[in-house]
Amino acid sequence: MTDKAFQDYYPDEFSHCYGCGRLNDRGLQLKSYWDGDESVALFQPEETHMAVPGSVYGGLIATLIDCLCTGTAAAAAYREQGRAMDTDPGLRFVTASLHVDYLAPTPLASQLEVRGIVTELTKKKVVIEARVMAEGKVCAKGKVVAVQLPESMLNTMTGEK
Amino acid sequence: MTDKAFQDYYPDEFSHCYGCGRLNDRGLQLKSYWDGDESVALFQPEETHMAVPGSVYGGLIATLIDCLCTGTAAAAAYREQGRAMDTDPGLRFVTASLHVDYLAPTPLASQLEVRGIVTELTKKKVVIEARVMAEGKVCAKGKVVAVQLPESMLNTMTGEK
Repeated sequence: MTDKAFQDYYPDEFSHCYGCGRLNDRGLQLKSYWDGDESVALFQPEETHMAVPGSVYGGLIATLIDCLCTGTAAAAAYREQGRAMDTDPGLRFVTASLHVDYLAPTPLASQLEVRGIVTELTKKKVVIEARVMAEGKVCAKGKVVAVQLPESMLNTMTGEK
Repeated sequence: MTDKAFQDYYPDEFSHCYGCGRLNDRGLQLKSYWDGDESVALFQPEETHMAVPGSVYGGLIATLIDCLCTGTAAAAAYREQGRAMDTDPGLRFVTASLHVDYLAPTPLASQLEVRGIVTELTKKKVVIEARVMAEGKVCAKGKVVAVQLPESMLNTMTGEK
């Protein structure tokens, strides 16, 4: 596994995401890494993240998949260009679509392992397939289509004029 | 719009969901209602729920759609049987799959309106299509396949023996 998380390369203005921003004190602060050709993130749910007692709510699973996959999209695009993630021009990706299949109840007490693999990479689009595992069992599978954010939209989204 | 939310009919053991449980003090406490043939829920994001400053993170959108739709599935199943949602036998639904298309950045400062409509209803499965709107504009569309929880699984999920 790489030492530094994808999210640790992001400039401050892209580090506020509730799911994976290192500067969001109330957020989940998910961190994603390369592990060979796969990306991986570990997450320990809290008691409040339940659907029913003992099981994780579906929106958390969707959030973990979404944040792992948009981070993976950016990391894969930089890797394709042979550049480190903190070099210019910045490559940022947003989710065009997210699909999650919930296969089994996800236990609340266990550390979750979220893994992604890039299945398509073009100049403006990255497709990532993901799975969420607990106690060695796949509880959910997901697919994210991430698209590169044009610079004009970057400025709008960060509030710059 | 109906006066009482779907979630206000749930027994206590099904009222802990982070997204929509009335007993989850740290959760979002989404409440869903019938408005004619559509279900509707309103939600005001907090500052922490950002993706980048000014826009809602994708996992929140997924959560709102998921919780509106599983509630709608239960409400639709009771309505089909001509029963109130607090009558026995209980009908509980879980998400088999969730799909979200993100159409535009969702503003963080605005109240979000999430609407669902049942497109398929069988004895064990309900399909719901949803949309998330802000400032009169559709920002995301979603589709949830919800399946009825067998009683044996109910007991496992609530920790009863």
